[in-house]
Amino acid sequence: MELLVDVGNTNTVFGLWDGDALKAKWRISTVRLGTEDEIYIMVKEFLNRNGSTVEGITDLCVASVVPSVNSSFKYFAEKYINKNALFVSALENIGVKWDVDFPPEIGADRVANILGAKSFYGDNVIIIDVGTAITIDVLKDSAFLGGAIIPGPYVSMKALFSGTAKLPQVELHFVENPIGRNTGDNIRIGIINTTFFGLQSLVSQIIKYYPVKPVVVATGGYARLFDKRDGFFDFINAELTLKGIKEFCKRVRNLEEDIANKSMD
Amino acid sequence: MELLVDVGNTNTVFGLWDGDALKAKWRISTVRLGTEDEIYIMVKEFLNRNGSTVEGITDLCVASVVPSVNSSFKYFAEKYINKNALFVSALENIGVKWDVDFPPEIGADRVANILGAKSFYGDNVIIIDVGTAITIDVLKDSAFLGGAIIPGPYVSMKALFSGTAKLPQVELHFVENPIGRNTGDNIRIGIINTTFFGLQSLVSQIIKYYPVKPVVVATGGYARLFDKRDGFFDFINAELTLKGIKEFCKRVRNLEEDIANKSMD
Repeated sequence: MELLVDVGNTNTVFGLWDGDALKAKWRISTVRLGTEDEIYIMVKEFLNRNGSTVEGITDLCVASVVPSVNSSFKYFAEKYINKNALFVSALENIGVKWDVDFPPEIGADRVANILGAKSFYGDNVIIIDVGTAITIDVLKDSAFLGGAIIPGPYVSMKALFSGTAKLPQVELHFVENPIGRNTGDNIRIGIINTTFFGLQSLVSQIIKYYPVKPVVVATGGYARLFDKRDGFFDFINAELTLKGIKEFCKRVRNLEEDIANKSMD
Repeated sequence: MELLVDVGNTNTVFGLWDGDALKAKWRISTVRLGTEDEIYIMVKEFLNRNGSTVEGITDLCVASVVPSVNSSFKYFAEKYINKNALFVSALENIGVKWDVDFPPEIGADRVANILGAKSFYGDNVIIIDVGTAITIDVLKDSAFLGGAIIPGPYVSMKALFSGTAKLPQVELHFVENPIGRNTGDNIRIGIINTTFFGLQSLVSQIIKYYPVKPVVVATGGYARLFDKRDGFFDFINAELTLKGIKEFCKRVRNLEEDIANKSMD
């Protein structure tokens, strides 16, 4: 069984991969991760709850956008599973051409999303990940062409709240009327409706770059805020990132094995 | 000569009104305003630079979205110009019907923008004020119907920067290609392009509520970031807010005079 970790700016998701499937997920606030031994405590609890143990883990693969936690996962893997942890990045030879100015700059979450989307939906996909930030990733003929990064809905609301003296925090959802009659609806229309329409417009411009309409898939904790069931998203897939981490892990371990075999020849 | 003050969350703009026209403007960081005497120092400098004096000021009218500074302006007016300062709010009998759930909730900046827009462009106007926040205000047949509030471009960028571990702050502008090939363009497309398209879509939905296309006017320090000269804005008017403060002042002083005359009858 493999342990997959998606370290986001707000939350970290642990996935337990068993053979061909994701067996269980566990969400922890990223600020709580701490040292390798603190990670052990949380991971042990997660695994025990799902009929497994730390000793039963055969591999650890991490997609992190928070560099400060990476060494804790590195030490955790060395100490508890006797293996080097794999960290997701835009490597060559893993099935995607990274056709952007500077591939090392691509966030690990986006690399994982691209690999996951490719595995689920093929070589032509637009991915919208709605979390702390909203990322748009463009995969065309198995090449990553880049995308966009937008502040996520709750980050936007906190920004309004902390950047102004009088605006409150409100619960966010789509509002049917485009003219808000109270402060709450003004903010909801500004953050949810306006971002939704902006995303729709941006994605429709990106779709024009494809000869055939690509799959549009959404993922991330807040994707449902933008799910109007009007055909904007073809799918909402909560497992995209973990699936992509698993794909990265498989491809890189295979490459390592090839290299090891060649050096033995 | 009248002194008009637009207290925003980031900057405060002082306007010197002479007869029928705005004679000069002066911008100060809102955090620097301080006490009534500190305001005096800054105002004196502004007025002297423009051939006037504090003693030559006949009225003071303030549109503030930062309640903590209001008492300083109140004391400044009492001490230095022997008059009660006027504070812009959604009062009745100033020419606009406030057709929203709770008129006292409407920001003073928006009240001023509506009065200014009405004075410049008539009874049917959509106002887009791009500052710390972006506000959309809908004036139809001289009634304010509400609108939307969106995080402004620099607030959005700071939110991305502080909400994430790896994203940098960048200079913002519209990007022609909708697919960013580097982190800077990813952020620019996410913040400027996506907001622009979202605003365009929202405003086009609002326009459908009017029998005849209303005037669409933009104002605020960052309005030019969204000025693609493609006909989205009919006008960019940097004086909208100060003009509205002047209108508020004129209308309320006239009402006060009417009441005084009546009580003398």
